[in-house]
Amino acid sequence: MSGGINTWCNARLTPEAKAMLRAGVENHRLSFADESHPEARHSLVAVLAPPPEDAVVAFGQPSPDDVLRGAQLRWVHLSSAGYTSFDRADILDALRARGCALTTSSDVYAEPCALHLLAMMTSLARRLPAAHDNQKGAQGWPFHAARAASSLLEGQHVLLLGFGSIARRFAELIAPLRMNVVAVRRQVRGDEPIQTYPESEVARLLPAADHVVNILPASAATERFLNAGRLALVKRGAILYNIGRGTTLDQTALVAALTSGRLAAAFLDVTDPEPLPPGDALWTAPNCHITPHTAGGHRGEAERLAGHFLANFRRFARGETLLNRIV
Amino acid sequence: MSGGINTWCNARLTPEAKAMLRAGVENHRLSFADESHPEARHSLVAVLAPPPEDAVVAFGQPSPDDVLRGAQLRWVHLSSAGYTSFDRADILDALRARGCALTTSSDVYAEPCALHLLAMMTSLARRLPAAHDNQKGAQGWPFHAARAASSLLEGQHVLLLGFGSIARRFAELIAPLRMNVVAVRRQVRGDEPIQTYPESEVARLLPAADHVVNILPASAATERFLNAGRLALVKRGAILYNIGRGTTLDQTALVAALTSGRLAAAFLDVTDPEPLPPGDALWTAPNCHITPHTAGGHRGEAERLAGHFLANFRRFARGETLLNRIV
Repeated sequence: MSGGINTWCNARLTPEAKAMLRAGVENHRLSFADESHPEARHSLVAVLAPPPEDAVVAFGQPSPDDVLRGAQLRWVHLSSAGYTSFDRADILDALRARGCALTTSSDVYAEPCALHLLAMMTSLARRLPAAHDNQKGAQGWPFHAARAASSLLEGQHVLLLGFGSIARRFAELIAPLRMNVVAVRRQVRGDEPIQTYPESEVARLLPAADHVVNILPASAATERFLNAGRLALVKRGAILYNIGRGTTLDQTALVAALTSGRLAAAFLDVTDPEPLPPGDALWTAPNCHITPHTAGGHRGEAERLAGHFLANFRRFARGETLLNRIV
Repeated sequence: MSGGINTWCNARLTPEAKAMLRAGVENHRLSFADESHPEARHSLVAVLAPPPEDAVVAFGQPSPDDVLRGAQLRWVHLSSAGYTSFDRADILDALRARGCALTTSSDVYAEPCALHLLAMMTSLARRLPAAHDNQKGAQGWPFHAARAASSLLEGQHVLLLGFGSIARRFAELIAPLRMNVVAVRRQVRGDEPIQTYPESEVARLLPAADHVVNILPASAATERFLNAGRLALVKRGAILYNIGRGTTLDQTALVAALTSGRLAAAFLDVTDPEPLPPGDALWTAPNCHITPHTAGGHRGEAERLAGHFLANFRRFARGETLLNRIV
């Protein structure tokens, strides 16, 4: 296919990342979508316009409808870790039927998301938010109280909901902390480096966890997965983390669990909706901490996305196995 | 010595930890100092009264003067990671001369202090303090700005000032993050698991570090070790951490370095003095974060101190090598 892999990109990239792409595709054609689209503001998507009819490769966030209309498309590389909009049997089957590959950028996001989880977990254990409030407020020196409220993590139980590349990396990061880590996964493959159970075991596992880490993607199957019934199973004093998708959690039930003290704290990077409106009860629920969907963000993100795409582009051009392949 | 190891304790302990000690010393005598002393408020020391004349073992924070006056004392086990008040050649020599051992509780504090450092480093990388301010303030959703300001730690350079049990454990905790970690140490022993240099190399190492982690103990040799001259050598945009002692850092120079932007941030667990008075410039210096000397604190601290003492007590009773021994 040398000379002819017509690539279209609507990922939100820096000039540096675009220059990397232009150099990296060498003599192949490359075009960028118009970036002035207003919907780009709160997402990594530059624009929702369809790829041109002769595009063979689409990199970014094309819509599934546009992809299925693009007769020449042979490979779609999403600029996200997840593939929510494509995660429907009919869409995946249609891609398979026409021999169009689907890959994600999950290798780009495993590191920042796992690090974000580590920061959330350790900062709560060491009471950093309370120290921050003290500094902005009384500027006191609550030596004994703050020490007694701080904790180690060694020996505590972690339940990972979802086990993809983020969870895998997070398990590596916390390995030196000597915690007890188990996971629940849609399909247990047997190659997981930690004990991993099917979803049917979740009611048994929730009461044992000190830390419930939700990394579930958005889909019909995960909608409100953590509902009031499941939150009621959580150990009193446990901490809930959500860096999956806001739709996987019943936020009203979460506020109730924080207010009653069943949950000691929550740390959310995703909410439903996003942006979370000012004044929403989550912002002020007791011990609820929110980051504005930044878990995957990092200096150099656009360049790492471009580099990961190009690594896959070279594989595509040579007919080799693609990284982070879904279809 | 069975039946006769007369032990005196002025460590600040919980009733549970005292019960552990009573059970653990078995048929040996054990007495506790009076805890109502007002100086106990901001420290782990229960009381500054001297041990009784017939004490053979002292556990807690006896004063060096009292120890040197205690003719029967054969072993002092400090309830702290450091041994600042004993760290003078004449005192250490006097202990050696009379065959009185000196040990610390550094094994108890390595884990919480290393975890505290990890929380500081990761929370800054992931911009958790800024997210907290947003939550307490505008409740906005600064998606792009916060993502661009967040960072990975992979590949960044860490310089550890001091290499004892805390630094050793911290190096273990950050090993999966794939950072470049080096240390400076008073006496390089050659058994360090990371590249370790003598103090004479610090001027060469400071400009290369993205993270300068100060774990130095207080002593005449470390007084204002990080002075204006050394802070001027630090790479622009580096982050400074202090969990050693407040006296090892020139705080006026630190405020200047934060104000000028030479240092991107500082995270201090120790200050000079402690408590840091409300209104001190450190509380409001740009990107300066302070925890009130809580790095070593943790739920169960008193019980872990008691357990560590008892492990050493059994070694002492059997004439075995003591843990965390200084003299």
